[in-house]
Amino acid sequence: MSRPLLTAYNWSPDKGAGLVRDMRVRWALEEVGQAYDVRHLNWGEQKEPAHRARNPFGQVPAYEEDGLVLFESGAIVLHIADSRPGLFPEDKAGRARAIEWMFAALNTVEPTVWELVIAKIIDAGEDWAEARLPSVLKRLHERLGELSKRLGDSEWLDGAFSAGDLLMVQVLRNLKASNILADYPNLAAYVARGEARPAFGRALADLRAGLTGQSPADWPY
Amino acid sequence: MSRPLLTAYNWSPDKGAGLVRDMRVRWALEEVGQAYDVRHLNWGEQKEPAHRARNPFGQVPAYEEDGLVLFESGAIVLHIADSRPGLFPEDKAGRARAIEWMFAALNTVEPTVWELVIAKIIDAGEDWAEARLPSVLKRLHERLGELSKRLGDSEWLDGAFSAGDLLMVQVLRNLKASNILADYPNLAAYVARGEARPAFGRALADLRAGLTGQSPADWPY
Repeated sequence: MSRPLLTAYNWSPDKGAGLVRDMRVRWALEEVGQAYDVRHLNWGEQKEPAHRARNPFGQVPAYEEDGLVLFESGAIVLHIADSRPGLFPEDKAGRARAIEWMFAALNTVEPTVWELVIAKIIDAGEDWAEARLPSVLKRLHERLGELSKRLGDSEWLDGAFSAGDLLMVQVLRNLKASNILADYPNLAAYVARGEARPAFGRALADLRAGLTGQSPADWPY
Repeated sequence: MSRPLLTAYNWSPDKGAGLVRDMRVRWALEEVGQAYDVRHLNWGEQKEPAHRARNPFGQVPAYEEDGLVLFESGAIVLHIADSRPGLFPEDKAGRARAIEWMFAALNTVEPTVWELVIAKIIDAGEDWAEARLPSVLKRLHERLGELSKRLGDSEWLDGAFSAGDLLMVQVLRNLKASNILADYPNLAAYVARGEARPAFGRALADLRAGLTGQSPADWPY
């Protein structure tokens, strides 16, 4: 296989916290020990036709390898996990359960986390933002409570660290700006375990080293 | 492989429209020609420990086969598509792109659709519900416009019908109660093509035949 090419931003809506979705792909590549190149986009280039051809939604990441062009961080992480050892268990049932946690991270937990991000950042200036917050927090706490209960005292969600943990940790990291994970000590410790992995550290350092561009002054995040 | 066992509700929050997530799994099983059994839950049973053991988030669907127990409709559809011919292209790159559209449906498009469902149904009685609607619709229309542009005049998102189309059609079907798809004739026609598939029809008929229980009177949907 050729060396993959990742498309990412050279600017950061989160001041280098590593919450942008290319972080998921960088972390996965580091876990499997696959070196890669990065194409950095300036602010605005993500909405240009050249990038829309790679990702019709005008977002990062995009991923290229041996003529394959992929968008959607979840699909890219799954492709990496299917192509190289390290992110899926070797047995078929274990692999299916790791994929289950990938979808749980992105389709069950992340929507409630994202609602809070929208409420706190995009909608923050609106008259009704405060009034709405309790219903947002109710949905989020329901999911976090369920996740916390399932994780219990385990190190990872289902046996060894997998692509499912990688995505779940990245989703939960969006809550670090708030104090919400303090209510779920086992989830906070789970996130800290993810962040302590050497592959995570290398991915975040590389992401930050690429932030040589300017974020727009009016970017709401 | 043994005959799969699907867990679904015997009640319907959507009056049998087939928007509950077990519909995704039923449709996938019909597409690949796999017969299955159904365990029906009464209202409330989804939050009981017996079902939480299958799905920690207390939702449907759950799926059992040869000792494997899976939750998350996206992961179950992917498992079915990986196990039987009919929902993924045979080449590795085509399969990766079908998975890309599965994640696009559930992680890029569905969150904006779900925001509208929450705004129109769960938040409908709140003072601020109307004031918030424009920002919800803005995010939704941005995604639908991008999806419509990428689909263009094609029949399906990437070559033959795939698991990616199955999930995308099911996500877009949540918009049928509103008039929003009228702004995107190619997306409306795409949804209609999905619904016209014999496998879709069989799945919906079976789902409706199982609705023998009572929905709670105060269920907000």
